[in-house]
Amino acid sequence: MSEIIFGRWAALETLRAGKRSLQQLILAEGTEERGVIADILAAAEERNLTVKRVPRRMVDDLAKGGNHQGVVLRVGAYAYAEIETIFEAAEAQNEKPFVLLLDLLQDPQNVGTLLRTADAVGVHGVVMQDRRGVGITPAVVNASSGAAEHLHIAQVPNLVQAMKRLKEYGLWLAGLDVSPNILPIDRADLNIALGLVLGSEGEGMRRLVRDTCDLLITLPMRGHVESLNVASVGSVALYSAWQARGWQGWAHADKPK
Amino acid sequence: MSEIIFGRWAALETLRAGKRSLQQLILAEGTEERGVIADILAAAEERNLTVKRVPRRMVDDLAKGGNHQGVVLRVGAYAYAEIETIFEAAEAQNEKPFVLLLDLLQDPQNVGTLLRTADAVGVHGVVMQDRRGVGITPAVVNASSGAAEHLHIAQVPNLVQAMKRLKEYGLWLAGLDVSPNILPIDRADLNIALGLVLGSEGEGMRRLVRDTCDLLITLPMRGHVESLNVASVGSVALYSAWQARGWQGWAHADKPK
Repeated sequence: MSEIIFGRWAALETLRAGKRSLQQLILAEGTEERGVIADILAAAEERNLTVKRVPRRMVDDLAKGGNHQGVVLRVGAYAYAEIETIFEAAEAQNEKPFVLLLDLLQDPQNVGTLLRTADAVGVHGVVMQDRRGVGITPAVVNASSGAAEHLHIAQVPNLVQAMKRLKEYGLWLAGLDVSPNILPIDRADLNIALGLVLGSEGEGMRRLVRDTCDLLITLPMRGHVESLNVASVGSVALYSAWQARGWQGWAHADKPK
Repeated sequence: MSEIIFGRWAALETLRAGKRSLQQLILAEGTEERGVIADILAAAEERNLTVKRVPRRMVDDLAKGGNHQGVVLRVGAYAYAEIETIFEAAEAQNEKPFVLLLDLLQDPQNVGTLLRTADAVGVHGVVMQDRRGVGITPAVVNASSGAAEHLHIAQVPNLVQAMKRLKEYGLWLAGLDVSPNILPIDRADLNIALGLVLGSEGEGMRRLVRDTCDLLITLPMRGHVESLNVASVGSVALYSAWQARGWQGWAHADKPK
């Protein structure tokens, strides 16, 4: 099976991450071969990947309407991770596990945006259900700016069963919810072995998923509109959790001690 | 001039906010008239607004490909605010001014998502430049779930000039940037009369905009991908600033004292 990754950052990070089998790099004729495109060509050469230059409308066809920016990459399927791999990654970094769980999100843009933030804060992995929700499609890889290629993402047949396994690994599962009378996010201790659980757009977490959480937390709201975009909620929560860990793993001169 | 607002939440909040002249509510035939649609119909009746039911393909045409969910609203132009109004709103609430500034953002989805978060944290207003960036189009209102209709949004011909005026009002301007060696967001005191400045997708703030800021702050990052989605950055920053204000204005039993 082959997939068509489209977009400059998606293509570059797919090449850099090296998780997929690589078949062909395809550039639209007339694309200026400098900047990110030059980086893509260098990465392709390093991997002895064939480069083909074709008319732009052929690239349009391959990307099926996606915003390809003149670049597509023909590759093998996305390599999903096992749950064990996520915990091995945390152990190898000598860090408390930090995992993002997605319950049936539908919008590739939201999933991609969340994966981009998840990569930025250094989660050890992501767990998502494999049916009815969106998987790691080329649109998600594009929306994630390629972050999906670097993350350990496990796709599970049943999220509630997976949550029970995660608890056996010692993970505390904190679900983001909008009910009143639950703990605001700054009152929860997030410097723990943590799984942050996000529900789908519109519906939130399914009841059993919510019931399987160890705690529920909320983002305060004071406006007119009743809910936030799920990628915003997730990004704020991921940053809160990483801040609670003192920006662990951040290489910066002015880092808090 | 008339505009076509599309989508259920966008239509409902436009009716509730009452800032625009209202011309007609149009529903796709076969749309179930319950839930949010029932709320929309009630709000329309309260304002003596004509309701028309037409075949779905006519609604498709009116919404020009937007995800209308069976509802469009024909209305007058968006009512932009004056900068004074933003400070009057802060004063009326007896709060330190809290303002969001957008420098030439291009993507209606990002702008809409940011406005939705801005509404949730209770900013007193938003300032954005009126050319080259996206304005408050129906696509932005839709992406904001209608939040744009409730916010005081000033559109200015020159953002740098507007920043200088905001400083005269005593606002501190904090620009979100990704350069190394600038202050991580948790080290800055954001419990001040604050203007948060966000640059455009890809480019960030223009140089003069950056130079006009009083301080620069950054979100730490430790991943493979070099930047975050601007709506994620803005949402995290807006929540950090509101948290620094002790969730001021939040009606919740468990609110920190």
